[in-house]
Amino acid sequence: MIFIQRERLLVNESNRLHRQIEFIREIDKLKHVLRQSLLMDASRQENDAEHTWHIAMMGMIMLEHAVEPGLDLKVVLKMLLIHDIVEIDAGDTFAYDESGHVDKFQREQLAANRIFGLLPDDQRDELISLWLEFEAGDTMESRYAASIDRLQPLLHNYYTSGAAWQRHGVRSSQVLARITKMAISVPALYDYAVWLVGDAVAKGYLAE
Amino acid sequence: MIFIQRERLLVNESNRLHRQIEFIREIDKLKHVLRQSLLMDASRQENDAEHTWHIAMMGMIMLEHAVEPGLDLKVVLKMLLIHDIVEIDAGDTFAYDESGHVDKFQREQLAANRIFGLLPDDQRDELISLWLEFEAGDTMESRYAASIDRLQPLLHNYYTSGAAWQRHGVRSSQVLARITKMAISVPALYDYAVWLVGDAVAKGYLAE
Repeated sequence: MIFIQRERLLVNESNRLHRQIEFIREIDKLKHVLRQSLLMDASRQENDAEHTWHIAMMGMIMLEHAVEPGLDLKVVLKMLLIHDIVEIDAGDTFAYDESGHVDKFQREQLAANRIFGLLPDDQRDELISLWLEFEAGDTMESRYAASIDRLQPLLHNYYTSGAAWQRHGVRSSQVLARITKMAISVPALYDYAVWLVGDAVAKGYLAE
Repeated sequence: MIFIQRERLLVNESNRLHRQIEFIREIDKLKHVLRQSLLMDASRQENDAEHTWHIAMMGMIMLEHAVEPGLDLKVVLKMLLIHDIVEIDAGDTFAYDESGHVDKFQREQLAANRIFGLLPDDQRDELISLWLEFEAGDTMESRYAASIDRLQPLLHNYYTSGAAWQRHGVRSSQVLARITKMAISVPALYDYAVWLVGDAVAKGYLAE
């Protein structure tokens, strides 16, 4: 009887591990999802996995600029690490592509169900919930995470002389509209971002 | 007087921010450091930034397999996120390159001082200390982080039919020696890794 219980436990455990490994294999595909941003040396487009590592680092380094008290960095890091995984199925929607945003959430929700659904149920639920929290932006962790996610491509655009902005004919008013929400969570970084936009216009990287 | 103090504060703050931005720009170079592992679809070599994102995800997902109680996931994630940044200067040393390991630590220590040294002093000290903790492997967080860092390339090798193993003439005894330490932190994952190695030999992916 004890032996049977142990066998059952092993099967259950190995089933959890099996699902976790399948998920880990599947998300390797994020390394193939290309973004519009170029790397800082303008040599090629960035992919989502690289972008995600970079913003997780920024989330760590920039924490002191968050003004909402008691922010949980562990939650922020988890949220940042998983927030683009849905793009394996749904693709990267360029920030200023209005038509691409029409059914973006619907496409991404299907993707979340499929990809996070590879995991054991409790982990699936946790990751879907973290992803929805990021999308809704109603908590201080999600506001901070989203602010960092907006600042990073701005830096990449600025330091590649506006490569992606020019390619897509983006104007400064569009960039400013996109970063407004940063003011609540990280006002110092918002001020810096507004300065970057102004300087990008002055340098001719970005249309007024 | 109050005005002068405010000015001084702004300068100090902007100096911190300036150093943080310089660091964030510099670490973009991790996206150019190629590893020996191929992506799961064998299309190209993986880079360090992608690898780091992947192991941070694994660190999150595999936590239940860590047997040492009270592991701090936030510390693990920070450690994983920064552990390969030194390779921007020191390069990726292939796990089974014995001559490359002779001066590895010395090269990496110089790199840590230069790259983390771009940050404000308190953040430089924190990141160097996290990196040294990872390298020493004396804490449960560093043992868990290192275990995950060993499992990931094993999965990539297994699922690319041993591409990097074959290219470098690696034998199963070398792979087994490299994963031994996993047994302390994550015995279930160690058992799984040993099974993968055995199966890789049986399938002809890896020399006995």
